[in-house]
Amino acid sequence: MNIKKVISFIGIMMMIESILMILPFIVSIIYKESDGKYFSYVGLPLLVIGFLLYKFFKTDDDKFYSAEGFVTVSIGWIVLSVCGALPFCISKAIPNFIDSLFETVSGFTTTGATILTDVTQLSNCMLFWRSFTHFVGGMGVLVLMLAIIPTKSENMHIMKAESPGPKVGKLVSKVSDTARTLYLIYVVLTIITILSYKLSGMPLFDSICIGFGTAGTGGFVVTKNGCADYNTFSQTLIGIYMLIFGVNFNIYYLILIKKIKDALCSEELRVYLGIVFMSIVLIVFNIYNLYNSIGESIHNAFFHVSSIITTTGYAISDYTIWHDFSQVMLLLLMICGACAGSTAGGLKVSRVVISVKSAINELYMQLHPNSVKVITFEDKVVDKNTKNTVMSYVIIYILICLLGILLISLDDFDFTTTVSSVIETFNNVGLGLSKIGPKGNFSIFNQFSKVVFVILMLTGRLEIFPMIILFSKNTWKRST
Amino acid sequence: MNIKKVISFIGIMMMIESILMILPFIVSIIYKESDGKYFSYVGLPLLVIGFLLYKFFKTDDDKFYSAEGFVTVSIGWIVLSVCGALPFCISKAIPNFIDSLFETVSGFTTTGATILTDVTQLSNCMLFWRSFTHFVGGMGVLVLMLAIIPTKSENMHIMKAESPGPKVGKLVSKVSDTARTLYLIYVVLTIITILSYKLSGMPLFDSICIGFGTAGTGGFVVTKNGCADYNTFSQTLIGIYMLIFGVNFNIYYLILIKKIKDALCSEELRVYLGIVFMSIVLIVFNIYNLYNSIGESIHNAFFHVSSIITTTGYAISDYTIWHDFSQVMLLLLMICGACAGSTAGGLKVSRVVISVKSAINELYMQLHPNSVKVITFEDKVVDKNTKNTVMSYVIIYILICLLGILLISLDDFDFTTTVSSVIETFNNVGLGLSKIGPKGNFSIFNQFSKVVFVILMLTGRLEIFPMIILFSKNTWKRST
Repeated sequence: MNIKKVISFIGIMMMIESILMILPFIVSIIYKESDGKYFSYVGLPLLVIGFLLYKFFKTDDDKFYSAEGFVTVSIGWIVLSVCGALPFCISKAIPNFIDSLFETVSGFTTTGATILTDVTQLSNCMLFWRSFTHFVGGMGVLVLMLAIIPTKSENMHIMKAESPGPKVGKLVSKVSDTARTLYLIYVVLTIITILSYKLSGMPLFDSICIGFGTAGTGGFVVTKNGCADYNTFSQTLIGIYMLIFGVNFNIYYLILIKKIKDALCSEELRVYLGIVFMSIVLIVFNIYNLYNSIGESIHNAFFHVSSIITTTGYAISDYTIWHDFSQVMLLLLMICGACAGSTAGGLKVSRVVISVKSAINELYMQLHPNSVKVITFEDKVVDKNTKNTVMSYVIIYILICLLGILLISLDDFDFTTTVSSVIETFNNVGLGLSKIGPKGNFSIFNQFSKVVFVILMLTGRLEIFPMIILFSKNTWKRST
Repeated sequence: MNIKKVISFIGIMMMIESILMILPFIVSIIYKESDGKYFSYVGLPLLVIGFLLYKFFKTDDDKFYSAEGFVTVSIGWIVLSVCGALPFCISKAIPNFIDSLFETVSGFTTTGATILTDVTQLSNCMLFWRSFTHFVGGMGVLVLMLAIIPTKSENMHIMKAESPGPKVGKLVSKVSDTARTLYLIYVVLTIITILSYKLSGMPLFDSICIGFGTAGTGGFVVTKNGCADYNTFSQTLIGIYMLIFGVNFNIYYLILIKKIKDALCSEELRVYLGIVFMSIVLIVFNIYNLYNSIGESIHNAFFHVSSIITTTGYAISDYTIWHDFSQVMLLLLMICGACAGSTAGGLKVSRVVISVKSAINELYMQLHPNSVKVITFEDKVVDKNTKNTVMSYVIIYILICLLGILLISLDDFDFTTTVSSVIETFNNVGLGLSKIGPKGNFSIFNQFSKVVFVILMLTGRLEIFPMIILFSKNTWKRST
């Protein structure tokens, strides 16, 4: 393990985080809030420590394999979350450290689950930092690092470990250029989103925060009733933009370089939109009698399907009054998630498609044991290794879900709350059923459960492997 | 598709079922019940039709591949269930045909879920037939056929399709001898079980019926309060015998041929007993304050863990009062199930072990992409094909579960009832949580849900592939 290189990367990451803290500090100046000082209390030491770590552990040893990549990402995210939680904690905005950590991890992992019973108690700079973590976590802070600093190609391992989806392709030949292109698309799309929100009648501060939440598919809100406080047009816009950020960013790159036909041919995109459309139709069919008009039920179904499949977690009404069928549909959408290479969580459409195809292929093989039939995805043959990795991923995913459910059940809530709380945190959704639906929050859980949720959120965001590998003794066996 | 051979096999199977109906007929004579005549009304035509089918479709064409095996088993089980339901239906013991079919499928698949609100309304011969279906379905009626008639080695395909577990080995060189040995062990063990129950103070009729339920890991009871009506010693015996019937029958064969050391070395056996022990400890630790004494809580935990992991479904008290954690534990045990090659349902311990090992292996490979590491089960290397088949099985298993939950949620019960009803029928347990716990039954569901449950029970008992392959157009493409 090239521990020196790992630590120097984490030093850089800490410096980046301290620089990011300038933004909420500026917000505090604009709104004349005294809370802003806490960002300098945390940010300055962070900058110094980060710089020292970078300086002292800088090494010419270039050995950097996937183990190093995974460890950098997992430790990096833990450090990022702990440091990000400090302003909440020392300003007493969220006095308890575990609570602050929960809130920050929920932010960076773009979950959007909150332990706050009333977010309006927070000052604007705190609310801004909270929503800004969504934006930073959405694309990944280490990808941001790769975009900024000149790096070597080995750093593909970091990008692989931090980016969502079964396969991470380089858009352009160099890793840092790929990271830069991704961030450029991300920033431009976010700015368009924020401007649209503002033009639709949302207050500017809300537009920015909800824009960050949409871009990172997070879900933190800044008003008491969340998205229910905005007009129908704004809500529709939010619904559309959530769907947009659930699309693989490669598609936007293809559109940028004018390969529009290739972009529209994407199998994952078509399946994703197909699932969204089908889900809306089925849910509207199931709940139309609960609303005054068919239009209202379509609006509600569209918004919540978009919010849940992209694992954002915004709500405009209490869907826990829906029939059981529609609520189960939402739960399935949480597990499915949106496209790989987007900011969304969940299993990802591509993994679902590959594992379903593999399973059907297996059925065929049972019938014709001596025949060979390949499966394809995006018009390419899925090789045995990818098939195996995806299926193993799904199985580990389920094992972690079940373990999570078992641990949270110790808190002795009803079964629906237990199951949906685990599914929503692990898939970085932020909204569940029963006691943690749109009207509830995570303050009801005890400290042990909150720690479990923190681990689930990080494991879900980093797609399992980095977190597990961090705690595996095999990782640390190799000599420095 | 060698359709002629398939039909002739089904003819034989119908004849066997008609002969089996002699037993409840005898019971009706002993108890002087007029209901017995319905078994002759159904049994005689069944014998004639079965004979005619066998006679007219007998063929010298020996082509019999896995497709034929799967189709024979799936059609065979559907015919078996429909014919077995007729006595209930035409005697008006269970007037509705769907209800009768549900009850019979629940019997043959050894699920033990019932739509009856009061089983004591049924005459003894009907109760006997109901419990007897557990015994017949436990080992499989087609395996019984193979044990009786002289067959060729191709019929391994039937055995493979009907027997539970990822791999079916022949105990002895000939299929019919293997089937005979299995049935011999099964019958002798069942007789010992029934005698023990009788000696422990249970009435003879109850001993026989509960014995059948234990042997097939079914779960139908014959008194109002089920196993709560028997003394503590009887309950303990039931707990122990359930565990015994959850063990792979190969182990008993090994003991029979005095390879006791090999038998005790079985990895699956050790994991199975380990899970049972750990579950009891965890549950006792969680629920001890709900009972008057620690002994009582151990007794309750032991009985229900044994009942649920073997997917039998007997209950001695209402465990829905247990804390959430213990109920989640029971749900996980339902999914896990007991050993392959036993009469139990569920995923089976061997599949769970192989898929967990494969997933962990995959983690290792992520870290060391160029290394090769094999996994072993029962001291043998698990080849890539088995690994793939098991993982695909688990994924298809989950897909069917999710689809089942979605369909049952249309009935609009609470989430816990919906989820546990699907898990318990698909794993052939017969007992769930919330509204279908020890105090509930399946009469609350509508006809559509009952049909879904019938399909789930059959699909679960036959381990998915035969039922899916029956409805695949590929199966029927091949020329006769």
